[in-house]
Amino acid sequence: MFDPVEKLKEFIRHPSVSADPAFKAGMKGALDFASGLLGSIGFKVEVVKTDLHPIILASRGDNTDWPHVIIYGHYDVQPADPLNLWNSPAFEPEIRGNRLYGRGAADNKGPLMVHIAAVGRLLERRPDLPLRITFMIEGEEEMGSPSFGKFLETYGDRLREADLVYLSDTLLPSEDQVVITCGLRGLVLCDVVVTGSKGDLHSGLHGGVLRNPIQAVSELCASLHKPDGFVNIDGFYDDVMPVEPWEREQIQKLGADTEEYRKFLGIPAFHTPPGYTPFEAIRVLPTLEFNGIGGGYQGEGSKTVIPSKAFVKISCRLVANQTPEKIRELLYAAIRARMPADVTYEIIDQHTGTPYVVVPPDRSNTPADQSPVLADAFRAADKVIADVFGKPPLYLREGGSVPIIAEIKRVTGLDSVMMGLFLPEDNLHAPNESFNLDVMEKGMRTSERILEAIADRK
Amino acid sequence: MFDPVEKLKEFIRHPSVSADPAFKAGMKGALDFASGLLGSIGFKVEVVKTDLHPIILASRGDNTDWPHVIIYGHYDVQPADPLNLWNSPAFEPEIRGNRLYGRGAADNKGPLMVHIAAVGRLLERRPDLPLRITFMIEGEEEMGSPSFGKFLETYGDRLREADLVYLSDTLLPSEDQVVITCGLRGLVLCDVVVTGSKGDLHSGLHGGVLRNPIQAVSELCASLHKPDGFVNIDGFYDDVMPVEPWEREQIQKLGADTEEYRKFLGIPAFHTPPGYTPFEAIRVLPTLEFNGIGGGYQGEGSKTVIPSKAFVKISCRLVANQTPEKIRELLYAAIRARMPADVTYEIIDQHTGTPYVVVPPDRSNTPADQSPVLADAFRAADKVIADVFGKPPLYLREGGSVPIIAEIKRVTGLDSVMMGLFLPEDNLHAPNESFNLDVMEKGMRTSERILEAIADRK
Repeated sequence: MFDPVEKLKEFIRHPSVSADPAFKAGMKGALDFASGLLGSIGFKVEVVKTDLHPIILASRGDNTDWPHVIIYGHYDVQPADPLNLWNSPAFEPEIRGNRLYGRGAADNKGPLMVHIAAVGRLLERRPDLPLRITFMIEGEEEMGSPSFGKFLETYGDRLREADLVYLSDTLLPSEDQVVITCGLRGLVLCDVVVTGSKGDLHSGLHGGVLRNPIQAVSELCASLHKPDGFVNIDGFYDDVMPVEPWEREQIQKLGADTEEYRKFLGIPAFHTPPGYTPFEAIRVLPTLEFNGIGGGYQGEGSKTVIPSKAFVKISCRLVANQTPEKIRELLYAAIRARMPADVTYEIIDQHTGTPYVVVPPDRSNTPADQSPVLADAFRAADKVIADVFGKPPLYLREGGSVPIIAEIKRVTGLDSVMMGLFLPEDNLHAPNESFNLDVMEKGMRTSERILEAIADRK
Repeated sequence: MFDPVEKLKEFIRHPSVSADPAFKAGMKGALDFASGLLGSIGFKVEVVKTDLHPIILASRGDNTDWPHVIIYGHYDVQPADPLNLWNSPAFEPEIRGNRLYGRGAADNKGPLMVHIAAVGRLLERRPDLPLRITFMIEGEEEMGSPSFGKFLETYGDRLREADLVYLSDTLLPSEDQVVITCGLRGLVLCDVVVTGSKGDLHSGLHGGVLRNPIQAVSELCASLHKPDGFVNIDGFYDDVMPVEPWEREQIQKLGADTEEYRKFLGIPAFHTPPGYTPFEAIRVLPTLEFNGIGGGYQGEGSKTVIPSKAFVKISCRLVANQTPEKIRELLYAAIRARMPADVTYEIIDQHTGTPYVVVPPDRSNTPADQSPVLADAFRAADKVIADVFGKPPLYLREGGSVPIIAEIKRVTGLDSVMMGLFLPEDNLHAPNESFNLDVMEKGMRTSERILEAIADRK
């Protein structure tokens, strides 16, 4: 078997910045490296062309009676700028202490290497393991996976044969506390552009006879929340999956300190809807936020203008079981109903994303039709993580959005087991990104045993 | 006597752009030209140094028993850009039809020439005219008169001896309808900057636990008007001078068409407080407007950020007898009372301006202590304008602000007779500025007779 740390260094040396065409050779290098490595441990490798960066599909095991796990990862990385803030060059991996530094070390080359090495060790030990494994490794994750939807449509039938997706591209809060991410929020985004007069007006000559578009935008925005923090749109919460006692208990076990969180944010006080702690709210409640507002004079000093236009950029984060279609409809209906007749306006669609949830087995709200292989995978993960890391994992929904997870579910019906492997101090997307080598070693042992347990189920 | 049109051309040829240091020679040329011209008609000319462009003080008549009129004007002009939009060069005056084209033709060199020529003719005809006249001509009007306050403090005692200020730097709505501007709105300006978290936040990871500063700014803005359009601040209207029936009648005589005004603005409907027509509202009501708003992402597409800061730029237009001090206090108190405790904020003072009003004599609300010379000047203007233009003037308050008029009143106690001489089609501050030579000729005859009537009173 190969040396996983040496191989990870080699992987990092290929500067695979997907967003920057200058790194074309680095992308090709990383693609070839990952393909070659999978070939070396007995996988049949297929490189699927896309409009931009190819996707690796590598599989082993032909027996359709065997359980089938798809392992997701990505070989592309974020840009490394600003380069001068790195203590060692971004693409020249260096070990300092128990950390391996380099762009992509934690996101996602390190965690991906954990699974490749785990599979390599497992297959070396048990060449006839009754488990089908497909690595699905894309090269556009850091660009928002633009080719992934088309790929899913084309390869959906093949992927649908699998039992679950397994990946490590989420966070663990500390070295001894693994989190399995069970939910991701969805998104509905739009811009509202309000027009008053046909051109900017002198506020002295015309002020007082018309509604300023900044006023109209402000009045709209101010109407969209209730004083207690809940979103003020009829029906907005209708489909929200209720938060169960087990979930609140998991969040509590996280042991995060509200006062520390407040200080971290640097706010005088929270403004969280009643009945929810801040740590619950970001995981289980949908939101409506303003991501940008603008209109009129933005510079220093003053200019007494009544602007012709003002805009606001609105985003809703959705939770299970809301749908972007319905929330968009409710939001647009509220905007239309509340916009006064003395201005004109336009609503500009931005993108949407479906929320995602997978409830672990043996919980009060686990769906009756949950796949038995998926349930066993969760049970195996729970036990192995407790053994290796010393504590069972926490099962948490997260506030962010990873649209491809919901998209995989939509197209193939497959749920994902998301085992976090990077730490808050790993500096993802920032200079001096690193990966904790202790977590790496524990991760490999964990992953090897989880996959073996899935293979050996009943 | 000189030829006023030829002299106006000469005046325009000096490119006196006060705001642009490249036009230093043009400023000096215009200053020397105006000083020389006043000297040539018998005025004792004093050039008062300021931090930037000098002010001309030129006077005739020593008998302190005579009435004393200060004629205000300015020798500086707006920049002429964009130059390529001019049909003839901005500083090479050209007559086409009954118009003289050139930068400053209407603002303010033409109207100022009207008064210099009127005085010249009058003194040629009656060298012993029992009238003291002081021309007070500044060179920084187009920059906001930054040196004028200091000048007023220094020369206030001398100016205070006069009976009134007389000027033409306002609009007449059509060639046969002169307007005497009787009021100007004041100003209170401030910025409100709201801070939520100490840095921008990811709206997925943290959305739903804190008040977005855009929300706080919107809620503040939305609270500042009542649904009917009135400003929603206790006491805001307490000191507002009531609009008298004679004033509504004057506004009605203006004959402006509401539907045309709506189309000119390009709005679907007016949003004017009940009880006031749009033409009344802009003249007699104070306002609260938003001149700019900003925060978060302003570009194309979306960025799911919760910004750390958002701001709004607020301006109030004040009417007689409101004071900037009190309105500022009421506004700030409202902001402080309404800002939630879960954000921090800062109110940044911008400038203020006092509103101005002078009620013509013989009206229901003319102050009992109105200066008799001022009252006679108004009566003379009414009669002469009716004779020369065919219609008596209208007496209107305007929505804009000319801070120096209120400042002259504050320091010297002097009221102003503001006789409009430029037309909407004169293109002030725009390419192809021009001055109507028929208005010029009628203006000179009018001004000559008004000044003569003031001299001959009782």
